[in-house]
Amino acid sequence: MRADERQCQRHGTFAEGAAPKAPAEQERVLLAHGDGGQLMAELIERVFVARLGTGEPPGDDSARIERSEEARRRRGEEAERQRGEDGRRLVFTADAFVVDPIFFPGGDIGKLAVCGTVNDLAAAGARPIALSASFILEEGLPISELERVVDSMAAAAREAGVRVICGDTKVVPRGKADKVYISTSGVGEVPEGVSVSGIAAQPGDVVLVSGPVGDHGLAVLSRREGLEFESPIMSDCAPLNRLVAAVLAAAPELHVLRDPTRGGLATALNEIARQSRVDMEIQEGSVPVRPAVAVACELLGLDPLYVANEGKMIVIAPPEQAEAALSALQSDELGAGATRIGTVTEGQGRVLLRTALGTRRILDRHVGDQLPRIC
Amino acid sequence: MRADERQCQRHGTFAEGAAPKAPAEQERVLLAHGDGGQLMAELIERVFVARLGTGEPPGDDSARIERSEEARRRRGEEAERQRGEDGRRLVFTADAFVVDPIFFPGGDIGKLAVCGTVNDLAAAGARPIALSASFILEEGLPISELERVVDSMAAAAREAGVRVICGDTKVVPRGKADKVYISTSGVGEVPEGVSVSGIAAQPGDVVLVSGPVGDHGLAVLSRREGLEFESPIMSDCAPLNRLVAAVLAAAPELHVLRDPTRGGLATALNEIARQSRVDMEIQEGSVPVRPAVAVACELLGLDPLYVANEGKMIVIAPPEQAEAALSALQSDELGAGATRIGTVTEGQGRVLLRTALGTRRILDRHVGDQLPRIC
Repeated sequence: MRADERQCQRHGTFAEGAAPKAPAEQERVLLAHGDGGQLMAELIERVFVARLGTGEPPGDDSARIERSEEARRRRGEEAERQRGEDGRRLVFTADAFVVDPIFFPGGDIGKLAVCGTVNDLAAAGARPIALSASFILEEGLPISELERVVDSMAAAAREAGVRVICGDTKVVPRGKADKVYISTSGVGEVPEGVSVSGIAAQPGDVVLVSGPVGDHGLAVLSRREGLEFESPIMSDCAPLNRLVAAVLAAAPELHVLRDPTRGGLATALNEIARQSRVDMEIQEGSVPVRPAVAVACELLGLDPLYVANEGKMIVIAPPEQAEAALSALQSDELGAGATRIGTVTEGQGRVLLRTALGTRRILDRHVGDQLPRIC
Repeated sequence: MRADERQCQRHGTFAEGAAPKAPAEQERVLLAHGDGGQLMAELIERVFVARLGTGEPPGDDSARIERSEEARRRRGEEAERQRGEDGRRLVFTADAFVVDPIFFPGGDIGKLAVCGTVNDLAAAGARPIALSASFILEEGLPISELERVVDSMAAAAREAGVRVICGDTKVVPRGKADKVYISTSGVGEVPEGVSVSGIAAQPGDVVLVSGPVGDHGLAVLSRREGLEFESPIMSDCAPLNRLVAAVLAAAPELHVLRDPTRGGLATALNEIARQSRVDMEIQEGSVPVRPAVAVACELLGLDPLYVANEGKMIVIAPPEQAEAALSALQSDELGAGATRIGTVTEGQGRVLLRTALGTRRILDRHVGDQLPRIC
């Protein structure tokens, strides 16, 4: 859900306003441009980063808010020195949600919109301090459905301890949207002493995940396609800010936090490996997957490592704090299924999967079309 | 474009999580729920404010960012006292853009998305410090069109002196969106000594507008409907933060700033009158309208006072600073057509139009269906 921001921050070497490439009239946006994989990364790099890129150093899910140059000039260096510290500790993130269907087992588009943005802030080590929510409504949407969605947002915001303080509403004619799309953005504050970033993974670090993967994507897909499984699969959608605060209290020197949403665990690990210029070695058997999810993936030809999660966090810790981080995760209801899944090694950005047979294979970013409209 | 935020802030007496009203299964979202008029205000009050309302005092286009209660507790009162000042001076705003067509004379959806959010911050007296942008793309959109849109965003952001620092991209199947929708949000900083708010208009204040009204709505409508006028009508879409900074430098005690977007000048004045619990008396002949816009409105049966603007600002100043504010407006290219249009009087929230004949009539919020998808 924030792969573009990651990219936006990561490909920070583009000058602002770089000359656009020659337009290619025939090229069109494909569904696969939105699914968190390779094609999406390429679109973002070419269209957004080349035009809006800021030249700042590589970053993460959320972008740091810095005073504009103009504001700095006006305020003068002295004032900037006194107040800049506070400004730099604010982070900003944004997401759009187009999930289909809008109601699914374990959540709905409203809960998702709040949790997605809260979790992006949490992955920056930040406490959420304010959210915004903009709605695009399709003419004909039953108002009772909108009310259910907004009730879910309110409940998720209460759970996270944050408020939606501003927003917007637009209505488009029937057939120009699909019920409701929600864009949320969030401002968060990084506590003193916390410094997590996708560029900070180091050889020797331990890779943890806060619980079983793949639940959200399968829950949405099963509802969309009308599939019935023996044990129903529920989305894991949940706000993780309190879990992250507990982990940071126990292990303040964590290196990386990231929520593996669109593109799943494999895509998120690949992003971190590239940002940090390290390899990772993941033990295939150690990645937790619920039996129902494993069975459903098998049936549908999906790899659970690439299926979206909305209530999980990847935690990469220096070895001396790994045990404390794991205990803190496991002590919280939302991290009860946390496990150690691998380690960071020297390398150039690859994720290697060590199989049960002891062989290793590369776990790459997928190229397009895993699951559309999952968030 | 921010009527909901105004509402969200204005109807601040709703308790968070107030019990939802009984669902009415038959009620559905209408196009008129999105056009800035009475129906939209009712939808927002009922669905969004009742569920997400914060209990804070009435506010404006942008909401103040305040530290969460939890953060306050954790940090302790002393630290809060030292640092709260800075937090309170940040403002946050969000908009969704669904304009049809995406390219129109004088702008496009990208320029609009940046200017709309910059102007909401400017209307809070704030300097923009960071923007986000989330895109919902329709499968099949030519990538060259997306590139043009993003180029426009970059140019508008440069003009405003701000950067788009984070965002998101989603793709929906053909027929589930209309080319591209953009949601932007912005964080701004209110300089010390500036305190403008929709609740601050006082009897005796002077009402100024920064130039002719109705251009944006007519420009979009004429392109959408394929209308040709003798003199082409261009959107006034522009970032107003520098203009506002110049006016605040000349007249620091301004009471109200507001950009009259969706719903036009009449709707914005009505909102302010209600927020401030005052009446306003507007001289009909003094409201500037370009001849081409007046003719087109006549032909189409539209009232230019209700047509959207995207580069105009309403300025309400105490009488002793009105002249300074007007001069500052007129000294800037973007405020060259500024005029005094009326005064604030004692009252209960009505806007009265004094006609050329000397009679007075009430200029109310319109009820639905003026112009859909204008921003």
